[in-house]
Amino acid sequence: MNKNITLIYGDCSSPEIVTQAVRVLDKIAARHGHTFTYTRAYMGGEAIDRFGDPLPASELEKCKSSDSVLLGAIGGPKWEGLPGDQRPEKGLLRLRAGMGLYANNRPAKIWPQLADASPLKKSIVDQGIDFIVVRELIGGVYFGEHKTIEQNGEKVAIDTMPYSEHEIERIGRIGFETAMKRRKKLTCVDKANVLDTSRLWRAVMHRLQAEYPEVEYSEMFVDNCAMQICKNPAQFDVIVTENMFGDILSDEASEITGSIGMVPSSSLGEGTCGLYEPIHGSAPDIAGQDVVNPIACILSAAMMLRYSFDMLAEADEIEAAVNAVLDEGYRTADMMAPGCTRVGCTEMGNKILEHI
Amino acid sequence: MNKNITLIYGDCSSPEIVTQAVRVLDKIAARHGHTFTYTRAYMGGEAIDRFGDPLPASELEKCKSSDSVLLGAIGGPKWEGLPGDQRPEKGLLRLRAGMGLYANNRPAKIWPQLADASPLKKSIVDQGIDFIVVRELIGGVYFGEHKTIEQNGEKVAIDTMPYSEHEIERIGRIGFETAMKRRKKLTCVDKANVLDTSRLWRAVMHRLQAEYPEVEYSEMFVDNCAMQICKNPAQFDVIVTENMFGDILSDEASEITGSIGMVPSSSLGEGTCGLYEPIHGSAPDIAGQDVVNPIACILSAAMMLRYSFDMLAEADEIEAAVNAVLDEGYRTADMMAPGCTRVGCTEMGNKILEHI
Ligand SMILES: [Mg+2]
Ligand SMILES: [Mg+2]
Repeated sequence: MNKNITLIYGDCSSPEIVTQAVRVLDKIAARHGHTFTYTRAYMGGEAIDRFGDPLPASELEKCKSSDSVLLGAIGGPKWEGLPGDQRPEKGLLRLRAGMGLYANNRPAKIWPQLADASPLKKSIVDQGIDFIVVRELIGGVYFGEHKTIEQNGEKVAIDTMPYSEHEIERIGRIGFETAMKRRKKLTCVDKANVLDTSRLWRAVMHRLQAEYPEVEYSEMFVDNCAMQICKNPAQFDVIVTENMFGDILSDEASEITGSIGMVPSSSLGEGTCGLYEPIHGSAPDIAGQDVVNPIACILSAAMMLRYSFDMLAEADEIEAAVNAVLDEGYRTADMMAPGCTRVGCTEMGNKILEHI
Repeated sequence: MNKNITLIYGDCSSPEIVTQAVRVLDKIAARHGHTFTYTRAYMGGEAIDRFGDPLPASELEKCKSSDSVLLGAIGGPKWEGLPGDQRPEKGLLRLRAGMGLYANNRPAKIWPQLADASPLKKSIVDQGIDFIVVRELIGGVYFGEHKTIEQNGEKVAIDTMPYSEHEIERIGRIGFETAMKRRKKLTCVDKANVLDTSRLWRAVMHRLQAEYPEVEYSEMFVDNCAMQICKNPAQFDVIVTENMFGDILSDEASEITGSIGMVPSSSLGEGTCGLYEPIHGSAPDIAGQDVVNPIACILSAAMMLRYSFDMLAEADEIEAAVNAVLDEGYRTADMMAPGCTRVGCTEMGNKILEHI
């Protein structure tokens, strides 16, 4: 198959991980007779430096017209003083919106080799951590109106959190569909005792529930969910939630796996063109040192093969290679443990390539 | 001293815990020559049943005209189908707003006797968990406008998240003042890369920072904070944050202590009249069984003595009694552990009274 992949190398230490992911993709392509061509697009800090805009129309167009987008991570201290509209993160928000990517899938799964790295105690980890947060990605308060006005002699800032029925329905459906492919349990997380958006969310979910009688559906308040993720993560199979709650809970969920540097994510909309990216940040403190962990980005590339290109064997092969390298005891600095062998970013890439 | 305390017995299993807290208050009053008189007010489900309103004006008035309010917990399945404005929780939101209680203080502290109950692993717990979440309580999206409209043939719900400078300044000041009384570290938690309210929050905090040069001030995004509370809670001394973020993070913070049934809270405004309540819910599933843990409510009463009545020795005495009972190995069902003696709600009250 021929696939055109847009690469966003990203900021700070991010280009180092994207480079390793591309090496892996190239080897997979060679082995399986695919041709991956790459288009480079600029987004985030790099785009600000180059174009004065975190996502120029030309770059969004490259992403939309490709078969999928692989991103590292963006942002860094260099751009933190900029006004809201010109921040690197705004480029990412606009990219998700511009590509119509409303469904962010964030797996939270323990790698057995790294189970000791979980901050949770063994008795909880041993019950299993294997769930997915399906986060609505282009609605809610992150995409509502933001304004700051003068009122009674002081500034008043107002952010607006809107959700419409169709926005809820399409992500709710992904929640149910994802649950159907897994252990058939779906938890809708909201704050329906206070927010109108949450109550509309529940009303729509109840309609969908009728279409998925096999799914064990439940509802949970967001503050309780933040507790339950620590207390009893084994109870979860699929969590579906709005954008901001999903932002907070999916990061907490990743943290309890103990290996943030291992967590990939996918963002999808109506078609098969998706955005694949690690959930970790751009790690400005270690940029240029070849010590950053490339695995989340490599696993994001595997997710791209699986979910956007339907290349299941190829995705399996990458994931198996990562597993083998962990079995051999190779670790980047962020996940180093006693008895293991510390490797840098490029060397981790080499080790994974050896198993493909 | 004479003090008039308003009691809100609350819903489901809540009256059982308030009853024990009142017994403790009475014994403290007798020993120290104080006179506590009690006024009963109705709020939440009980008020809905009695008045058709979760907080009638008469009940708010009782609370405002007393020296402080002791609350158990409200809500339950009985009232869950009601429209947003008539829910029990709405009574609590209106009570906080009506009393002008903008500062919610939520301590997250490990009791050494219960350290094993933490979901976090020992190596993290051993670094110490002792921080306070100072949550803004009467602003932000929980108190903004909530509406659901018809637009393009579908429903659209919109919640509004407003913050004005004076609202931020008064809670920010409490954050700095609280830090000054502790380890002098303050973390402002927000989502300033996306929200206007967060950016205004930071601007105000930077002004206050100039007044508190001794405080080590830092800022953290809310999603990262949800991770850090699991990963490295020892880094925190005081967290100051807006209402909804504080709702989520303070519950997560309580959970990592492993003993939700032990966590009290205070809510204060300009004067000394505060609202004191456990952070746990009304535990409908065990209502009427005399098994609910009364300690968080008893510790809330102790906080009331300390922060609203300046009765420091009396508060110390209650806390020491709780500590002694834990040392003796008495536990309610929620915190039962091997080798301990299980007691019910009234009996836990008895045991604590024995040490006063
Ligand atoms: Mg996040
Ligand atoms: Mg809460």
